[in-house]
Amino acid sequence: MKAARFYGKEDLRIEEVPEPSPGPGQVKLRNAYAGICGSDLHFFFYPESLPFALDKPHPLTGATLPQILGHEFSGTVVEVGEGVTDVKVGDRGAVYPLAVSCGTCAACRKGLFFSCPLMGSLGSNVTGGGLAEYVTLDASKLHVLPDSVDLRTGALVEPMAVAWHAVSRGGVKPGGTALVAGAGPIGIGSWFALKARGVDKVLVSEPSADRRAIMSGLGAQVVDPVNEDLAAAVASLTDGDGVDIAVDAAGAGPALASALAGLAPGGRLVVPALHEHPAQLQPTQLMMTETEIVGAVGYRPAEFDEVIAAMVDGFYDTTGWVQELPFEGIIDAIHSLRSGVGGKILLQVG
Amino acid sequence: MKAARFYGKEDLRIEEVPEPSPGPGQVKLRNAYAGICGSDLHFFFYPESLPFALDKPHPLTGATLPQILGHEFSGTVVEVGEGVTDVKVGDRGAVYPLAVSCGTCAACRKGLFFSCPLMGSLGSNVTGGGLAEYVTLDASKLHVLPDSVDLRTGALVEPMAVAWHAVSRGGVKPGGTALVAGAGPIGIGSWFALKARGVDKVLVSEPSADRRAIMSGLGAQVVDPVNEDLAAAVASLTDGDGVDIAVDAAGAGPALASALAGLAPGGRLVVPALHEHPAQLQPTQLMMTETEIVGAVGYRPAEFDEVIAAMVDGFYDTTGWVQELPFEGIIDAIHSLRSGVGGKILLQVG
Repeated sequence: MKAARFYGKEDLRIEEVPEPSPGPGQVKLRNAYAGICGSDLHFFFYPESLPFALDKPHPLTGATLPQILGHEFSGTVVEVGEGVTDVKVGDRGAVYPLAVSCGTCAACRKGLFFSCPLMGSLGSNVTGGGLAEYVTLDASKLHVLPDSVDLRTGALVEPMAVAWHAVSRGGVKPGGTALVAGAGPIGIGSWFALKARGVDKVLVSEPSADRRAIMSGLGAQVVDPVNEDLAAAVASLTDGDGVDIAVDAAGAGPALASALAGLAPGGRLVVPALHEHPAQLQPTQLMMTETEIVGAVGYRPAEFDEVIAAMVDGFYDTTGWVQELPFEGIIDAIHSLRSGVGGKILLQVG
Repeated sequence: MKAARFYGKEDLRIEEVPEPSPGPGQVKLRNAYAGICGSDLHFFFYPESLPFALDKPHPLTGATLPQILGHEFSGTVVEVGEGVTDVKVGDRGAVYPLAVSCGTCAACRKGLFFSCPLMGSLGSNVTGGGLAEYVTLDASKLHVLPDSVDLRTGALVEPMAVAWHAVSRGGVKPGGTALVAGAGPIGIGSWFALKARGVDKVLVSEPSADRRAIMSGLGAQVVDPVNEDLAAAVASLTDGDGVDIAVDAAGAGPALASALAGLAPGGRLVVPALHEHPAQLQPTQLMMTETEIVGAVGYRPAEFDEVIAAMVDGFYDTTGWVQELPFEGIIDAIHSLRSGVGGKILLQVG
């Protein structure tokens, strides 16, 4: 089968590898679409900054270089292993890629598996991934898609779940108000998640005109934080109160600071974004207003199902921000994303 | 009566003023002890940095310069106004100094009265305060002390409630682990509050040898964050997990950073401290570990009662950190606190 295998810094090759075969409890999936995530760009350009090393086998999974990438993907079951009863050939599903964690560390004991130092995910440090024609995985990791959710949308479940989880961490309540800083895929997903959960007053702050256009096209109220008055826009949206939730989906200091400044007393800023640089803030501001900053990473299995249910309910509109490319376009896609193109690129891998 | 009235920057005078008389629903208190708070130092040295102006009458209370200071105090009821039935002459109590807030702003609507821009507190921007022989206040603001809590300890209820509230905001659970950064009165109070609430594994980080000696004397495990390895001490206390709660009672960037670094995955750092300078942090650290930073300001009426109950239960030991001075010693006390002397100074005002 064809697979995109990562060999090291800026070295990703589409090549022929043997098809995997499902073990007991596993299914074999013919992958349909696989998205490229910011963390895939990190693999490609900055493998030295990964929280784990791939040049030696992962202690739990044995995965090592070359590694098939891709952890945002959907596919159709073509074979089931021994003992699999819940999933059948022909089922279409979105893959929950988190496969292993140590089970004993402080993070695992609290159920924060994405914070486990030995966390292993398909497409990262578990053998196999979405950027291949086939993959095998535990049947329990396949979230079967209902008929009304197509495989293209199914490949978006994973990144949308990242945003859904961030919004959950914000303590979302119907009728509240929100600011989303940054309109990349996680910002877009946060906007959908907020709307799906009854937060109708949402402002999206984004310096890129192209990305603002995407959001406007989806029906969002947008503001340019560089050339417009973000604070005034927040005040106008919220009758001067500030927002209940802000999502830092930008990963940049100025976005963090303005999101914090836009919070209502008792409001909460969620950070699902990776920041390249440290950020500066005034802790007294947190103190005087009892505001909060909380991190968010990954998702929970139930959140995958919540996203799929919201997709069924029509909350996810892919107009203007999702483009498909043939599998062979992967290197172009990586460079295009790095140069700042908006939205999500899905590769047709199946 | 004698009162310490603030006239402006570094101008505080003990002078004779008329005794107040209780209105309907009020009591007249003969004050016993009044503590000096960090915010009193701000009044004295940096009045320009206050969140409100005293050179014109407060919009809700009419308070203006000269203003009697003192919001940490206890006393004995000597007269009750019309309609007061719950409190009687001879009752001893701790004063809940927050007197007014606007009632309509975003903070007030959430019950975050200390974050209201028009918040008024006795001893700050409500006429009357603890640094006087007498004060009048609404009877409902007097938290009556049981026989086993003396007036000297009663004057500590307010600062101990600030720390109690901070610990509440930390999501305290019995059996958890904690780090307190800074051993001023709020750090000391946080240590008591944690112990009173079943958190036995508490590490106190403090660069001052004098303050560490105070904490050691109270039975705390202390660490010098400058000359010792704080991270190793946290790891040793928590079997490598990190702490569930950290309290930044220092108000300094390095303390904030090391407290954040000491958190377990999912842990929470509370900031009840005023910071003079902005602080730097790496948001990715929050993200990867789902940790949280939350502000804490003031307290709630129920928390005053919780502190008093913990005092009855013997959790508050004033050995080594509380000293009394005669009322006339106030200016010396302010300078002594500013020069970094540890603990709490109580003035004998009654």
